[in-house]
Amino acid sequence: MHKSRLAGFIIDCQTQDLEGAARFWGAALGFAAEAAPGAAEARYRRLDTAPDELHIEVQQVEHPSRVHLDIEADDIEAEVARLEALGARRIASVHSWVVMEAPTGHRFCVVRVQRSDFDARANRWP
Amino acid sequence: MHKSRLAGFIIDCQTQDLEGAARFWGAALGFAAEAAPGAAEARYRRLDTAPDELHIEVQQVEHPSRVHLDIEADDIEAEVARLEALGARRIASVHSWVVMEAPTGHRFCVVRVQRSDFDARANRWP
Repeated sequence: MHKSRLAGFIIDCQTQDLEGAARFWGAALGFAAEAAPGAAEARYRRLDTAPDELHIEVQQVEHPSRVHLDIEADDIEAEVARLEALGARRIASVHSWVVMEAPTGHRFCVVRVQRSDFDARANRWP
Repeated sequence: MHKSRLAGFIIDCQTQDLEGAARFWGAALGFAAEAAPGAAEARYRRLDTAPDELHIEVQQVEHPSRVHLDIEADDIEAEVARLEALGARRIASVHSWVVMEAPTGHRFCVVRVQRSDFDARANRWP
């Protein structure tokens, strides 16, 4: 048995101006933008949603701008296998997460648990 | 004074199989998929998030698959003007909503109020 659910989404921005991108999206959506913790995450700015709400980050990327979803799981390999059985494909492992592609063509990521109410509210898969 | 906030997001799917797309995303994210109300919305399937949570819909589209954000507002024209001042561009008016493009290149929509706790929790703009 493992658990997963939608963790949030990342606004991937093909830009040299991450601060400007974070400023726009923070103001547009009404959240403060803050640096994500960790020097390894210099390409991310987190929007300050509550710990139990969907997380939203603005990311500087090289590929064309898009929005991608993150699914949080307490067992990433079990979740990847579940999603493969639904028709998704594994694309790459990056740091602690796995990039996948949906049958509809969307890239998304399976990530470690992000939100504070995961244990109480995530979906349980036999 | 008007109010707005993030309403949710739409998973735009370039597919001839809307049911299959809705089935995948419903199963992947752990929500039931249901037909949106209204014959005019035959290209949409709503995932059954709670009324006060972000709304999520799967939409059949002709353009390449992507995810787009919706911003809900109690005054759409005032919200469009606010977002233009932040650097977004108006692209088109469609039914009751306005399609815009962010300075980061993302398309998004300004829509009527969607979520049940809008009055209590939306951002207020002077």
